Amino acid sequence: MKGILFVISGPSGAGKGTILERVLKDRQNTEFSVSATTRAPRPGEVEGVHYFFITREEFQNRIESSSFLEWAHVHDEYYGTLRDWVRSRLDEGHDVVLDIDVQGALQIMEKAVDEVFIFIAAPSIDELHRRLTKRGTESGEKIMRRLEVARHELEHVSKYEYLIINDDLSLACEQLSAIMASEKCRTKRLEYNLI
Amino acid sequence: MKGILFVISGPSGAGKGTILERVLKDRQNTEFSVSATTRAPRPGEVEGVHYFFITREEFQNRIESSSFLEWAHVHDEYYGTLRDWVRSRLDEGHDVVLDIDVQGALQIMEKAVDEVFIFIAAPSIDELHRRLTKRGTESGEKIMRRLEVARHELEHVSKYEYLIINDDLSLACEQLSAIMASEKCRTKRLEYNLI
Repeated sequence: MKGILFVISGPSGAGKGTILERVLKDRQNTEFSVSATTRAPRPGEVEGVHYFFITREEFQNRIESSSFLEWAHVHDEYYGTLRDWVRSRLDEGHDVVLDIDVQGALQIMEKAVDEVFIFIAAPSIDELHRRLTKRGTESGEKIMRRLEVARHELEHVSKYEYLIINDDLSLACEQLSAIMASEKCRTKRLEYNLI
Repeated sequence: MKGILFVISGPSGAGKGTILERVLKDRQNTEFSVSATTRAPRPGEVEGVHYFFITREEFQNRIESSSFLEWAHVHDEYYGTLRDWVRSRLDEGHDVVLDIDVQGALQIMEKAVDEVFIFIAAPSIDELHRRLTKRGTESGEKIMRRLEVARHELEHVSKYEYLIINDDLSLACEQLSAIMASEKCRTKRLEYNLI
C-alpha cells in the first residue's frame, strides 16, 4: 500500500512538536519530511537527514522546473519540499509527515491529490498567549508577533480536513493517531479484491 | 457537538457484530439505532429498545410522508429507520450506529449529508465461506445464498468511505475506533472559535 502524506500545521505554542514526536515514536513506517534549503549546515546537521543542502542556483532551477511541493523564502534563505523525494518515500510505502506553516500548506492544497491536511490549535489565542509566556524563551514583542501570525493562520483552518484542539495533550495525541489510522481505511486508498 | 450517524454494512460472517459489540462497549455516548417494524414483538423484546413496533397502516403512512431514512420489506414484514428519531439522538449529542445491509445504506447515501459509511468485509469470499461453514449454524444451501448476496454487496464497497478488512479481529476493532474518533476531528463538524 502506498504511503500517505500528512500535512500538519499549527502555531508555535499549540503543542504540535510534542504531539508529533509522541505519535511518530509509536508509529511504524512514518517519517518526517526532509526539506531542501540554501542555508549552510549547522554543526551536527547531516545531509539527507536534517536537510538537503543545495545551492541558490540549484534551488532556483528547481523552482523553475516545478520540483517543489511548496517553497518559501525566509530570512534571505530558501526552504522547500522536493516533490520527487516525497513521492519516492510514499511509493515505497512510508507515510510522510510534513510539519509546515499555513502558507506552505496552501501551496500544496492548490494541487492536492490525496494528501491529508491537519491543523493543530490551542483552545484559544488567550491560551496560546499564556503558553508562549510560560515558556519564557521569547520577548514580549516576539510573542505578540507570533500571536498575530497565529490569528492570521487560524483564518484558514476550515481548509484543513481535520482540526485537533490541543486542550489535553494525551487526548490530542490519541486524536492524531486515530486520524492517521483511519486514513489507512479510506476505500479510495485501498487496493482490494475481496471477490 | 452534534452526534454522528455511522452507517455500517458487511456480509454475515465478516465479523461485523463482534466488532461493533466490542467497540461500542468501550465508547461513551454511542448507541445502536432502533428500527421500526411491523412484525410482532418476540418474548423479551421491549418497545423503543429493540424495536419500535408499529402497525402496517402506520408504516405505510410513514413511507408516504418520507419519514424513513431507509426501509425494507422482508419476509412480508416491514423494517425501517425513522429519520426524526435518529435526528433527535444526534441533536442531543449521541453518536448512532446503524447496522444495515447495502440496499438500506444505498437509500441513505442518496440523500446523505454528513453520515459516515463504513463497510466491514472478510479478506475474501473464500475466507467468508470458511467462516460460515465453521460456524456450523446454517445449511450448505443457505451458506451459498449468503455468499451470493455478499458477492453482490461487495460490488458497492467503493461507495463506502471506509473499508475495514477483518483479517485480525483486534486490529479491525482498533480501526473502527480510529474511524469513529477521527470523524470527531473533521473541521466541517466542529464549531470552533479559536480567535
